[in-house]
Amino acid sequence: MDREGGDPGYVDLGFARVDTDRLPRTGDPEVVYAAGKTPDEVVAILGTLRDAAPDRPSLVTRADPATVAAVRLRWPEAQVEGTTVVVGDLPQARGLVGVVTAGTSDSPVAAEAATTVRAFGAGVVRVTDVGVAGLHRVLDARPVLQDADILIVVAGMEGALPSVVGGLVGTPVVAVPTSVGYGASFGGLAALLGMLNSCAAGVVVCNIDNGFGAGVFAARIARGMQR
Amino acid sequence: MDREGGDPGYVDLGFARVDTDRLPRTGDPEVVYAAGKTPDEVVAILGTLRDAAPDRPSLVTRADPATVAAVRLRWPEAQVEGTTVVVGDLPQARGLVGVVTAGTSDSPVAAEAATTVRAFGAGVVRVTDVGVAGLHRVLDARPVLQDADILIVVAGMEGALPSVVGGLVGTPVVAVPTSVGYGASFGGLAALLGMLNSCAAGVVVCNIDNGFGAGVFAARIARGMQR
Amino acid sequence: MDREGGDPGYVDLGFARVDTDRLPRTGDPEVVYAAGKTPDEVVAILGTLRDAAPDRPSLVTRADPATVAAVRLRWPEAQVEGTTVVVGDLPQARGLVGVVTAGTSDSPVAAEAATTVRAFGAGVVRVTDVGVAGLHRVLDARPVLQDADILIVVAGMEGALPSVVGGLVGTPVVAVPTSVGYGASFGGLAALLGMLNSCAAGVVVCNIDNGFGAGVFAARIARGMQR
Amino acid sequence: MDREGGDPGYVDLGFARVDTDRLPRTGDPEVVYAAGKTPDEVVAILGTLRDAAPDRPSLVTRADPATVAAVRLRWPEAQVEGTTVVVGDLPQARGLVGVVTAGTSDSPVAAEAATTVRAFGAGVVRVTDVGVAGLHRVLDARPVLQDADILIVVAGMEGALPSVVGGLVGTPVVAVPTSVGYGASFGGLAALLGMLNSCAAGVVVCNIDNGFGAGVFAARIARGMQR
Amino acid sequence: MDREGGDPGYVDLGFARVDTDRLPRTGDPEVVYAAGKTPDEVVAILGTLRDAAPDRPSLVTRADPATVAAVRLRWPEAQVEGTTVVVGDLPQARGLVGVVTAGTSDSPVAAEAATTVRAFGAGVVRVTDVGVAGLHRVLDARPVLQDADILIVVAGMEGALPSVVGGLVGTPVVAVPTSVGYGASFGGLAALLGMLNSCAAGVVVCNIDNGFGAGVFAARIARGMQR
Amino acid sequence: MDREGGDPGYVDLGFARVDTDRLPRTGDPEVVYAAGKTPDEVVAILGTLRDAAPDRPSLVTRADPATVAAVRLRWPEAQVEGTTVVVGDLPQARGLVGVVTAGTSDSPVAAEAATTVRAFGAGVVRVTDVGVAGLHRVLDARPVLQDADILIVVAGMEGALPSVVGGLVGTPVVAVPTSVGYGASFGGLAALLGMLNSCAAGVVVCNIDNGFGAGVFAARIARGMQR
Amino acid sequence: MDREGGDPGYVDLGFARVDTDRLPRTGDPEVVYAAGKTPDEVVAILGTLRDAAPDRPSLVTRADPATVAAVRLRWPEAQVEGTTVVVGDLPQARGLVGVVTAGTSDSPVAAEAATTVRAFGAGVVRVTDVGVAGLHRVLDARPVLQDADILIVVAGMEGALPSVVGGLVGTPVVAVPTSVGYGASFGGLAALLGMLNSCAAGVVVCNIDNGFGAGVFAARIARGMQR
Amino acid sequence: MDREGGDPGYVDLGFARVDTDRLPRTGDPEVVYAAGKTPDEVVAILGTLRDAAPDRPSLVTRADPATVAAVRLRWPEAQVEGTTVVVGDLPQARGLVGVVTAGTSDSPVAAEAATTVRAFGAGVVRVTDVGVAGLHRVLDARPVLQDADILIVVAGMEGALPSVVGGLVGTPVVAVPTSVGYGASFGGLAALLGMLNSCAAGVVVCNIDNGFGAGVFAARIARGMQR
Repeated sequence: MDREGGDPGYVDLGFARVDTDRLPRTGDPEVVYAAGKTPDEVVAILGTLRDAAPDRPSLVTRADPATVAAVRLRWPEAQVEGTTVVVGDLPQARGLVGVVTAGTSDSPVAAEAATTVRAFGAGVVRVTDVGVAGLHRVLDARPVLQDADILIVVAGMEGALPSVVGGLVGTPVVAVPTSVGYGASFGGLAALLGMLNSCAAGVVVCNIDNGFGAGVFAARIARGMQR
Repeated sequence: MDREGGDPGYVDLGFARVDTDRLPRTGDPEVVYAAGKTPDEVVAILGTLRDAAPDRPSLVTRADPATVAAVRLRWPEAQVEGTTVVVGDLPQARGLVGVVTAGTSDSPVAAEAATTVRAFGAGVVRVTDVGVAGLHRVLDARPVLQDADILIVVAGMEGALPSVVGGLVGTPVVAVPTSVGYGASFGGLAALLGMLNSCAAGVVVCNIDNGFGAGVFAARIARGMQR
Repeated sequence: MDREGGDPGYVDLGFARVDTDRLPRTGDPEVVYAAGKTPDEVVAILGTLRDAAPDRPSLVTRADPATVAAVRLRWPEAQVEGTTVVVGDLPQARGLVGVVTAGTSDSPVAAEAATTVRAFGAGVVRVTDVGVAGLHRVLDARPVLQDADILIVVAGMEGALPSVVGGLVGTPVVAVPTSVGYGASFGGLAALLGMLNSCAAGVVVCNIDNGFGAGVFAARIARGMQR
Repeated sequence: MDREGGDPGYVDLGFARVDTDRLPRTGDPEVVYAAGKTPDEVVAILGTLRDAAPDRPSLVTRADPATVAAVRLRWPEAQVEGTTVVVGDLPQARGLVGVVTAGTSDSPVAAEAATTVRAFGAGVVRVTDVGVAGLHRVLDARPVLQDADILIVVAGMEGALPSVVGGLVGTPVVAVPTSVGYGASFGGLAALLGMLNSCAAGVVVCNIDNGFGAGVFAARIARGMQR
Repeated sequence: MDREGGDPGYVDLGFARVDTDRLPRTGDPEVVYAAGKTPDEVVAILGTLRDAAPDRPSLVTRADPATVAAVRLRWPEAQVEGTTVVVGDLPQARGLVGVVTAGTSDSPVAAEAATTVRAFGAGVVRVTDVGVAGLHRVLDARPVLQDADILIVVAGMEGALPSVVGGLVGTPVVAVPTSVGYGASFGGLAALLGMLNSCAAGVVVCNIDNGFGAGVFAARIARGMQR
Repeated sequence: MDREGGDPGYVDLGFARVDTDRLPRTGDPEVVYAAGKTPDEVVAILGTLRDAAPDRPSLVTRADPATVAAVRLRWPEAQVEGTTVVVGDLPQARGLVGVVTAGTSDSPVAAEAATTVRAFGAGVVRVTDVGVAGLHRVLDARPVLQDADILIVVAGMEGALPSVVGGLVGTPVVAVPTSVGYGASFGGLAALLGMLNSCAAGVVVCNIDNGFGAGVFAARIARGMQR
Repeated sequence: MDREGGDPGYVDLGFARVDTDRLPRTGDPEVVYAAGKTPDEVVAILGTLRDAAPDRPSLVTRADPATVAAVRLRWPEAQVEGTTVVVGDLPQARGLVGVVTAGTSDSPVAAEAATTVRAFGAGVVRVTDVGVAGLHRVLDARPVLQDADILIVVAGMEGALPSVVGGLVGTPVVAVPTSVGYGASFGGLAALLGMLNSCAAGVVVCNIDNGFGAGVFAARIARGMQR
Repeated sequence: MDREGGDPGYVDLGFARVDTDRLPRTGDPEVVYAAGKTPDEVVAILGTLRDAAPDRPSLVTRADPATVAAVRLRWPEAQVEGTTVVVGDLPQARGLVGVVTAGTSDSPVAAEAATTVRAFGAGVVRVTDVGVAGLHRVLDARPVLQDADILIVVAGMEGALPSVVGGLVGTPVVAVPTSVGYGASFGGLAALLGMLNSCAAGVVVCNIDNGFGAGVFAARIARGMQR
């Protein structure tokens, strides 16, 4: 961990040690996970990150309205999509990530994923509402699915869409289960288990509703793929 | 519960009260669930059932090899498929049940279902190994799926096939999760939850590996459907 | 999937691909699952469906009060039962579905089931509050239970009613567990497991509180049964 | 804990402290739970108990064949039922416990319960194989059920029998779930949850397969009931 | 089920079939479980019960404030303890039930149990806040514990108190786990499992927070015990 | 349990038996767990404790704002940190406990732990926000971690920090999982299981969010360690 | 799904429909999952695959010794690693996948992953036994971890290694939980949940012990990455 | 991590990187967890450890008979207790750890704990079979419990003993749940949850059956305590 002259690789704010070393270590922008933090804490951490890497975007995820407002007050140019906020210019897109949803209710998770992909430097194409209950919709989307470098497939309920997509095309699939559903979906557990047991080889899985994690992973891949 | 002259509707064997009233009550043959019973107990119960309704088939399910042998010794004409045994002539088939499997490993459960359907008086058509990881196989089977009165769809792992079939045709679907899988399939739990949360309307579910229950239900339906 | 001249079988609203192909594919009306959608989204999807099949009813399920109000504003003739809304004339009833509840608290789920059955083209007879803790009530209902083509049995807590009904009559039983209960009912899990393990053959199961799914399945069956 | 002259109320065998104080404390015989103990350990503990209370029976539960053989070698008069062994004369029976089973496969647990009841000083009446799938069998048993002071109802699968019995008669019911079943019975969990959520008031529950515990409880009650 | 001249044993209110046959069948008053019912429904059911057995108390459990108010408006003499309401004169007490709590937070469940015991015709003695973390408190209560005919032991968190009490005295123990706790108590699951696995013989268990069920069971026992 | 002249070792407040014997028994101050108690009950219990041991601090944990206010009204000198309140002078610190957090969101649990440690007589050093996603932060903290007598390591999500710390230094580690996370964290279950399965020897675990329990344990150890 | 002249894209063996269309569809070799299939079935399916694509390797996974022997009898040149068998020449390696294990016991899963990676056309570098309990081992491996295109990180117990690796380098991480562990590892559940909740962004997860799935995914990525 | 001249702190055996740096890092002997390793692998790792620190004992845990035999062949002086093996001289004992068991069946776990404590340099006193079902046994052991520096309390079933001990004395308690039990003990889950929710402050918990982990932790504490 070779850092210059005494730089510890983080800034100690007392209540947080902000990791300013991630960029050289991983090549990625830093992110603030806002859940469980006060708006003031988020703004303070974000300020530290903006100072450390002003030419890179910073991301805030899981921001409640008060946090969104506080961030916008300080950085009026912030771009907000749902509970995700980007401060700083988006990098040029390298590679292409397809973000696919099974149903309309899965859109917030897909939006988090797509915003993250862009902030982490890859391009995005969206395919919406192609759940397996009307199979002709996903069959029609096949050319788009094949054209992407990697796919993020977002689905709740039984989470069958990644298996269908993974059987349809050879594009690598990152599956994101959502908490959409009721009763025996147990908050997304049914979709999660379904995706983990996919009979289609080459499907990997993220935590329930974790559009952000899928976005980071997919962007890293897409940026490096030969086209 | 109007039964003739003092007939209690069962025969008391000491260790078991054999329900001889089921035929008038439900129109169905009686069945011996052999798990947890000794071969002698199974033969004794089966003998009582054969005496009570000699012109109807009787079924033994979950029979281990010792039980199968004991039944065959007494009734050499018994027909055995895996762990399922039928004694007595099969009734004429009314209606048609499609029995569909996702993978080769799901075959034993499908066999139990198909044998049960026949013993309970309906006809069977089999569609084998049409898992969603190779979607063209199930798409090709569409005419058969549409032609049946009701479908039994058997699948392990993530259990996505009933959703795909349910989205493809309007035929009612009885889904049977199997314990095929490993790790986070948790003995069939993943497939069970997937099927319960199916986004395709009109999918109902049986217990894990319960080909028998699905067969009883589907046969009752198929026997009564207008064609 | 032979559709006329370039019709993709769905209408793309941007946020949703409305499946307009379901009617020829399944013979059923289309349904909007309103949970997780805004009132505006529901109205837009419903409008597309009304245009595609004006002579068929359309169903909205799990509608919150704001959505109910928005639908009523646009279609004042809409019929509302609890969280279920029907727009368009109900079809003539073919066949008969018995909707049976164990307790008064199970009524909302039974209402969703019954409304769905009617919208999907079958007739309904209700049997209410015949839980097993007072067995004479369900014994008295036996003639009605026998007379139906198929039964939807709705129960929470330990979910024992489908087993009792399934042992009493030969009518096929679709069991719906409800989230009625507390403590170790775990939101309906106890009833769900109980129904999946029913010792009465020929009981199939839906997701917790899924009156809609049971209604679709039962209506499809009842419409086709010989009487 | 007033014991005579320095008696600690137990005998220290090094590997075990045998509780010789239970009789004055609870009025019951002592029991050796043999699972996880070697035959020699069981014999040593049992010998201590026989010495401490020679005029009372001692019980060994969950004894494997080697342990049964070792006990019989030392006490040839031992009475063995399945995995339960009684050494010493049975006390006179006070009160009456009904032991009821849903199916033949539940018999081993019922046998453990019945043997325990007798060793703990109450009388037993058995009602066998009256599962809810053939309701007329349990209805016929109603007089016996009403005549007992307390009932032990043993059932696997969905465990519905205690609810039905509890709704049929006012006799207190101790429910014992068994591990009989497969798939979503999860080793008896379904029956356990079903019994805990019984809609029939006054049903209490024991651990899965715990015939012994139910027997102790019921015997204590039956011994003290006014008849 | 011999009832006089055409009395079906229930009153059909349309939304409910009120079981008016329970008294002759079980010897107990009827109870309205108010959760999931409207205040109007509760009052209507309760009115039917008051008419059917005016000389017996009727119980309402799990009543929210609106339901309590509605009941009081109609029956000003109603006695209310927490969420439990009794209408009608309490019967004379036969036998004695000890109601024991581990901590102050378990009091509401203990109150439901105690009120039920009284309404079902037995006497009550309370022992409060004798959790195992200060063992001298429960040791001091030993004489009271021994003197009761049966004990209801209410505990949350790890639910160890029934084991300690069951090891201390020979009085039969009905254990009631409560949802008191946090984290890995999982809403009372830890206490429930602890009680089901009690190493003290003769401990039986009710559903989480089910003071009512424990009260019914214990009252039935205590009323019949010889003193 | 030798107490002077008739002192039972507790004060009976009717709704609670306050354990005044803990100090001689365990050497620790008494604590009021406020969850599930009314503010008045908390003040009454606390008053009893202050009277019994006025020269020792008393602790209130899980106090909601109303309870905090009620305590402050009576004891204006009370020190409040989050939901933890201390009344009385803090004892001199013996030994040193390191309280380490993985992320900012884990701070409330760490604060409860640190306050408890001080009230129970040990010193505290805090290490904040050293989660494993930026490993250089925890590597830099190594000297502090080695210098403490015992460490409390607080982490949510996957709960990996105790394993890393336990592999880095030989200081004993008490791990506290927190409910920080979402989806498949299942309210802290993921972190709890992770810590229980730690591959680093010598990691012990507390309940989810149980900073208090970790604090009591660690303070008892630190007070007694040779330095 | 444009295939030449009537080729359905699969070969129907009666008991199986072998998908011969996967190569053009996904660019990957076909695989036989041997669990639940007889050796004869595996050989028959494998023969079909060898005929369809003789210039590509075919993979058999989860082969028991009898299946391995049967495959070797027919194809003596087969390469066997543990329960994984490759028939046919390995393709030239494009890209580099790092396969990392936490402990020696995780080796079989890592071997399945590495063999799969090679058969699917990418190169492999192994890093063995770098669990977090001795952190210096993984720190030393940092250059190798950075140099790979993608990492497969295999770990049982608490599954913390992917978080540490993901925090150390920017290389994308596919985490594979193993069933290594005991007690509260619950067959790999603890590791699975830990990995799903990883605080390191960009970690995706496969099913427990699913080295094959991770290998397919990683090979597809590595083959396409720019170096 | 300052190690001399190029010593990486581990020895690379190809299949394992043996951590030879633990002694300076943690002050403890190294341990081989034998489950999932071949006897040859265990012997090879153990040989490396003996060479690295010949004057310290090395421990093998979870050794099956073949591994025990292989170790004894190479090191005839090895001391074996159950599945735990110690090679090398035991260090002098500093401090005192009490190892307490609830029942005879918990002895193997207690033996693993006690052997580990000794190998890690502390003294041991055993208290056996003092389960809460006979409370006088644990009350009699109070002086021994108070005299130890720290207690390891081993219990299966409901796991109540640590709460009772923790309420009885102020000595810190490390609780170890065991898999002793059946049915709803779910392999030790009931005991684990019970201990995590202990109402006695200052109880910390290890994994199910993890006598080794408890022993390491307790020995580290006891070695450092002032007496």
